[in-house]
Amino acid sequence: MNIQEIISKKRDKQALTKEEIEYFVTNYTNGTIPDYQAAALTMAIYINGMNEEETTYLTLAMAHSGDILDLSELGTVVDKHSTGGIGDKVTLILAPIISSLGIPVAKMSGRGLGYTGGTIDKLESIPGYNTNISVEEFIKNVKECGISLIGQTLNLAPADKKLYALRDTISATESITLISSSIMSKKIAAGANKIILDVTCGSGAFMKDLTQATKLAETMKKIGQLANKETVCIITSMEEPLGEAVGNSLEVIEAIKALKGQMQEDVKEVILTLGAYMIKLAGKGNDIEENKQKMLEQIKNGNAFNKFKELVKTQKGDITYIDNIDLFNKAKYILPVISDKNGYVVSLDAKTVGEISMNLGAGRKKKEDNIDSSVGIVLKKKIGDKVENGEVLAYIHANDEKKGKDAVDMLQQSYRISETKIDHKQNILKII
Amino acid sequence: MNIQEIISKKRDKQALTKEEIEYFVTNYTNGTIPDYQAAALTMAIYINGMNEEETTYLTLAMAHSGDILDLSELGTVVDKHSTGGIGDKVTLILAPIISSLGIPVAKMSGRGLGYTGGTIDKLESIPGYNTNISVEEFIKNVKECGISLIGQTLNLAPADKKLYALRDTISATESITLISSSIMSKKIAAGANKIILDVTCGSGAFMKDLTQATKLAETMKKIGQLANKETVCIITSMEEPLGEAVGNSLEVIEAIKALKGQMQEDVKEVILTLGAYMIKLAGKGNDIEENKQKMLEQIKNGNAFNKFKELVKTQKGDITYIDNIDLFNKAKYILPVISDKNGYVVSLDAKTVGEISMNLGAGRKKKEDNIDSSVGIVLKKKIGDKVENGEVLAYIHANDEKKGKDAVDMLQQSYRISETKIDHKQNILKII
Repeated sequence: MNIQEIISKKRDKQALTKEEIEYFVTNYTNGTIPDYQAAALTMAIYINGMNEEETTYLTLAMAHSGDILDLSELGTVVDKHSTGGIGDKVTLILAPIISSLGIPVAKMSGRGLGYTGGTIDKLESIPGYNTNISVEEFIKNVKECGISLIGQTLNLAPADKKLYALRDTISATESITLISSSIMSKKIAAGANKIILDVTCGSGAFMKDLTQATKLAETMKKIGQLANKETVCIITSMEEPLGEAVGNSLEVIEAIKALKGQMQEDVKEVILTLGAYMIKLAGKGNDIEENKQKMLEQIKNGNAFNKFKELVKTQKGDITYIDNIDLFNKAKYILPVISDKNGYVVSLDAKTVGEISMNLGAGRKKKEDNIDSSVGIVLKKKIGDKVENGEVLAYIHANDEKKGKDAVDMLQQSYRISETKIDHKQNILKII
Repeated sequence: MNIQEIISKKRDKQALTKEEIEYFVTNYTNGTIPDYQAAALTMAIYINGMNEEETTYLTLAMAHSGDILDLSELGTVVDKHSTGGIGDKVTLILAPIISSLGIPVAKMSGRGLGYTGGTIDKLESIPGYNTNISVEEFIKNVKECGISLIGQTLNLAPADKKLYALRDTISATESITLISSSIMSKKIAAGANKIILDVTCGSGAFMKDLTQATKLAETMKKIGQLANKETVCIITSMEEPLGEAVGNSLEVIEAIKALKGQMQEDVKEVILTLGAYMIKLAGKGNDIEENKQKMLEQIKNGNAFNKFKELVKTQKGDITYIDNIDLFNKAKYILPVISDKNGYVVSLDAKTVGEISMNLGAGRKKKEDNIDSSVGIVLKKKIGDKVENGEVLAYIHANDEKKGKDAVDMLQQSYRISETKIDHKQNILKII
């Protein structure tokens, strides 16, 4: 077997065998196959695609290219993953609710690049919260408190890491095959038995339309099935940001308020749907509507909030911040964005809001960048809301006056206000 | 402009602009664009193709990536190139004939890889022949003697060299766009005004069938037209080797005999056709049949042979070898291949004969390999010939007994002899 023959086959639209895919992944990871041959094969895969079996072989080979987290002693673990969105604080709210229902939550997340930090960066805006603990301590925490959310301390799916970096340089990111195998390889390496995926769709997401999002969801579901990891995909809208806050500590604050019962309607819709299917996957209830009621009850009776506090405490975070959100560091400038007309918000482009957040310093452009946890955006008006001339649309939280003012201008322009009311659309677009 | 955007466009089947193609070629040649990005783009070009304008821009950008040989003081120079075949000694015979008609022949050839050496390697089997002279001396020789055949002493089309080496490692060789731009970039850099191309077709050639060969020929003709270098392509058959000898000094010997009037019929057909069109391109005669007659006359009256001797002398080669071919080094073992049946030769696979030649040491597998000038094959029977049981089909010339015997077995097996006579096919398949 040699890499040139493998490249020729894919170049000529033929399906690769399990052995050929494993040969490529193993030898690319260990450096025997150079980047330029991997680049040629990746481009051929991008253009000519892979069938479901090939995609699954690629996923499994990448999953097994490094450590595999063994969570078997925890019973059934349902992992949750989002393909990325603006203002996505879902894990921060959902994980404590699920854990409070007696379902173990053991989640290792990467930091990643993007408009805001990842879940791990957001949690680190709570002083003391330690995301860098050993696997033993991580499993001990889940056993004792039912939940642990930490950074990626193991060498999970190094093949995916290497291929992902390559794809970024050769314009081969937006491929259903490559995206789905990348996501699923990390999930499988992270030890979950069952997987729930929040597949975001819209201007602020990788998948711009429902057709593409559906294809991605179906591919990942199929990989899960072939890899014996039951998977459910919830396609959610990412036309406007989710919830009201975009930023790191700002999203933690929104999450704390949500766990205390003040939850934005769009966030609630997403959290309840994802959670209800997680409960079902965990074997704790087949009725989706009943599951949603159970979740709401955990918020009402304070169990979800207490579970979050317990998580923070176990990870050595300062829980006085959770009890009193006013303690969080504030940005130097909090600048209002004012409406200059009467009407209704008809669009608020998620991608633009993400770019504003990035410019303020809330996200990373390069791996080495530091993030500023206090900056970001708080949206007071969203699609469907009535606004009056002079009313506040949003607040910009900035540590640099110039950047803050630029953000105000940019955000004002991205609010489209019309005389005709448009209804807020459903956030859950499809369940696969 | 950046390379990722260029890759995305070609990945999505869009045409690239002149500026984008030049940006790629310049920055790949100078090392700013790494191999892995060039590999991704090359694979995208392989799969999605390029239109005629793009292919011409690529050709011209590669041609201008290094030195351009300036032959303007020589008047109209017609360059001849073959896409490669087994037993292809055409240049050795054709160049002196054309030069003897007063048309300048100034040809710089690479060594290349293959079943036998290139023209330059073949000429070097004449003791003393110096293929490595300065450009000034090269042009002086053409002015004084009307002909010079030398190695590639200038840095011609380095972009093509780099891309060609890359294509070889990523299974991106057999693309019409990439082959035609590679060939034409070298021809343009080599300073020709007009170009005649021998596009070989069959088992011993890059192009296996007439459809592909026609496509390649049409593409190169079009590039020539757009680049203002009038080009004629002659598609010739390469199902069996051309002429009787395959090897380096063996082919020189065949060429000398041909120039003295003993020319194999298939070689004659190819030489006369290519030559007649070269004469026409040079503006020295529009009637193809008349041109052929002129060429035959130059052989008959000894002018072509004398021109060859003059060439060898000017390049410091030992002309006693040209007058007496028995002086050429002989291989240690000359082994007959005997027919074991009566009948007619119906096939003699050119590719297999090429591989036998390579195994005997006549060609290079890697750039660093030395070639053995005395080894090779002399075919006594070719397609259409009648053979009798016990008759000699061919002779293997070997310097290693074991290799010689293996070659005998391999060649015997590749002769297919049948009771039904098959006519020798035309060697000229198409003129474009």
